[in-house]
Amino acid sequence: ARERADFLRLVADNIDAIGDALTERAGAETGLPAARLNGERGRTVNQLRMFASLLEEGSWVDAHIDRADPDRQPLPKPDLRRMSAPIGPVAVFGASNFPLAYSVCGGDTASALAAGNPVVIKAHPAHPGTCELMAGALLQAIEQAGMPAGLFSMVHGHSHEVGMNLVRHPLTCAVGFTGSLQGGRALMDAAAARPVPITVFAEMGSVNPSFILPGAMKERGSSIAEGFVGSLTLGAGQFCTNPGLVFGVAGEAFDRFAAEAGRQIEATESATMLHAGICSAYAEGVEKIEATQGVSVIARSPEGGKTQGRGVLFRTDAETFAQTPALQEEVFGPASLLVACEDVAAMQRLAIGLNGNLTASLHATAEDLDESGPLVELLSNVAGRLVFNGYPTGVDVAPSMIHGGPYPATSDARVTSVGATAIQRFVRPICYQNAPQSILPEELRDINIKGIWRLVDNERTKEDC
Amino acid sequence: ARERADFLRLVADNIDAIGDALTERAGAETGLPAARLNGERGRTVNQLRMFASLLEEGSWVDAHIDRADPDRQPLPKPDLRRMSAPIGPVAVFGASNFPLAYSVCGGDTASALAAGNPVVIKAHPAHPGTCELMAGALLQAIEQAGMPAGLFSMVHGHSHEVGMNLVRHPLTCAVGFTGSLQGGRALMDAAAARPVPITVFAEMGSVNPSFILPGAMKERGSSIAEGFVGSLTLGAGQFCTNPGLVFGVAGEAFDRFAAEAGRQIEATESATMLHAGICSAYAEGVEKIEATQGVSVIARSPEGGKTQGRGVLFRTDAETFAQTPALQEEVFGPASLLVACEDVAAMQRLAIGLNGNLTASLHATAEDLDESGPLVELLSNVAGRLVFNGYPTGVDVAPSMIHGGPYPATSDARVTSVGATAIQRFVRPICYQNAPQSILPEELRDINIKGIWRLVDNERTKEDC
Repeated sequence: ARERADFLRLVADNIDAIGDALTERAGAETGLPAARLNGERGRTVNQLRMFASLLEEGSWVDAHIDRADPDRQPLPKPDLRRMSAPIGPVAVFGASNFPLAYSVCGGDTASALAAGNPVVIKAHPAHPGTCELMAGALLQAIEQAGMPAGLFSMVHGHSHEVGMNLVRHPLTCAVGFTGSLQGGRALMDAAAARPVPITVFAEMGSVNPSFILPGAMKERGSSIAEGFVGSLTLGAGQFCTNPGLVFGVAGEAFDRFAAEAGRQIEATESATMLHAGICSAYAEGVEKIEATQGVSVIARSPEGGKTQGRGVLFRTDAETFAQTPALQEEVFGPASLLVACEDVAAMQRLAIGLNGNLTASLHATAEDLDESGPLVELLSNVAGRLVFNGYPTGVDVAPSMIHGGPYPATSDARVTSVGATAIQRFVRPICYQNAPQSILPEELRDINIKGIWRLVDNERTKEDC
Repeated sequence: ARERADFLRLVADNIDAIGDALTERAGAETGLPAARLNGERGRTVNQLRMFASLLEEGSWVDAHIDRADPDRQPLPKPDLRRMSAPIGPVAVFGASNFPLAYSVCGGDTASALAAGNPVVIKAHPAHPGTCELMAGALLQAIEQAGMPAGLFSMVHGHSHEVGMNLVRHPLTCAVGFTGSLQGGRALMDAAAARPVPITVFAEMGSVNPSFILPGAMKERGSSIAEGFVGSLTLGAGQFCTNPGLVFGVAGEAFDRFAAEAGRQIEATESATMLHAGICSAYAEGVEKIEATQGVSVIARSPEGGKTQGRGVLFRTDAETFAQTPALQEEVFGPASLLVACEDVAAMQRLAIGLNGNLTASLHATAEDLDESGPLVELLSNVAGRLVFNGYPTGVDVAPSMIHGGPYPATSDARVTSVGATAIQRFVRPICYQNAPQSILPEELRDINIKGIWRLVDNERTKEDC
């Protein structure tokens, strides 16, 4: 674990050392501005160092010890000890929208390596040069640290077959994926059809519904409109946590909110999108919503260049929304749909029918909450993270963060792909029965050398046993 | 949680109250002797009470709290809190070989209910009357505790379609299964093909390889033979942890071991098997091994009645084993194959080629272990539990227990189906961002009312925050 921690810190140092060349290459390949990329680089190296600290502290292995009791009736109790161990080689498919933090040396790779697994990367065809630079930082660290060469490798390729072969390879034990529902589901299906099925941890995006309750709408509709449009158009709307759906109670306050949000959208410049495929898919998605009966356009951002995504705000009513499942499909980019509901009860009915999401947001006064009935519980059924009086973008890398949620947001709502517990995806527990001390991993020996938290005879302690 | 704990205790009390009628019915349906069934009833009620205690203690929800820091640069840090929540309705398929402890009110049901989920049981067609008695205990507890009627239901049926419909039902969120590889894989495939895929937690049995190293074989081959045959023939060999494979180094000590194990098998009465299907599948499996070139029969138990399974011991060499993948398939019943290897290196090579198993056992002296090279690590790659100088049957219900392992032993090696952490299969984490105290579950509020262990700003504590 100590060697792995040192190694992860070396990777981080090497990424920092690439300097401006990384920002320039990533900028040229993704259209993302330098400030954003430099921030993302910070996030990337911080993640690597966070996992290094996790390894150094050591309690993450979830060590359990149950000591023997030879006198137990009717049968003697054996000595049982268990902890997490690496699951095996992990294939990682990075995201186009986080060319640093969720690509070659991103969260999936960092957590899989931290757990002790080799990683094989499928380089993203939209930023191959960035991938090469990041892979170089990793390979250099392998040499510096004297780690086995097979710890990391990378394959390039436009064809889906390249990735499918990675998922189908008999030695692949798990898959990390960040991308579209279509792409993630294809990998899930291939993984499930293997002679030995494996788990794909796919984060496949989300529409991230926001619910604005009447009191909040009345009290601060205008500031919510501003915050909402800022979240919607951030990074040309190219975030999994982009707020694509807004529910409110129809009426004057709602109309004022819609008008203000419309003004904000109109005042926001269109921005360059990540690649041609995303740009054309966005345009198609917008056209499809526009063509839906019962949906109208409130406002658009100024027309931009042909590589740019133009912000757009739609409006519909609860009935149209309920009867049009396609309106729950993610349109990746700065488009959002306002849904005017009759009352809070109608909002609750729509909440029940929502697909799985990464987040759900609730704008509410204390009084709103008192009168919202089961709304919070309904939203917790369909999302991994509930945001109160805020916006879903800006995913904090913290121990409590859950970046996950029911399908189609992810393939497995039981895990997170952001934060320290992301490591739990790539381990499995191993139990040792009556093992001699010499055989046991350090974390499970009587003497707690590392001073980690352990569950000893069902008591949480850092003591020796 | 307190109500759920009381409810689980009521279920246990009601099962105890059925008294001899349960033993009689289960005995008539399974052929298992009364002493075994009474022991299993104890295990069943203890499991329910164990989960009740887990709920009362409360730390199992894995509460995390990261407090806000409005002054953090470059962005303010939000208040983030998270804990486990129920995943949704769980379909449970019980095992024929544990009509009490892994059927209607068994480990899967107990853990799913403890987590807060409704459960729908597919009654096992081999012990429908036992299922009815156990369901009665559960339904009675629902009434006594004033729980919602929909918390538990049960369907009967011989046809696979009954179970498939349960797995395919849109409201089913997870599946617990204990049974054959064929049955488990069929459910896994159906679950993966759903519009919204779900996870099947299938425990599908195992051959449980045992490795006897030369020093241990020489020093105590005879007592290992006795322990091994006891484990092999316990309950007519109808355990997922039945030791179906034994590896040793060919030579005099191995021959003495084989002869002694043969004598033990010959001295063991054949016993009634659970149902006609298992009995005929066992006979077919034995015939198939017997017909394998390079495999010979060492000894058999005395011929029993037509409903009985006759213990049988086979022998082969390492080369035959390596070249015959079918010899790794589980034969459910009291049959085991001894594999004579040239040396310890040959044992290591065979360990690399093993399929996933619930357990692997190692009989070794201290000197053996010093000279065993990577054998322990190789075995940890293919099993969920490593047993030292012991036998795999007798799965202790303890916090450290892992009853799980790589496919085909289970569908997901990251979990256990026995012990308190079995509850983790049926929950998912929910994160609350900037939520008012009034909205938060009790476990996540500043004041730690229940006094549970929480990770607060990355420190493990029971303090308020």
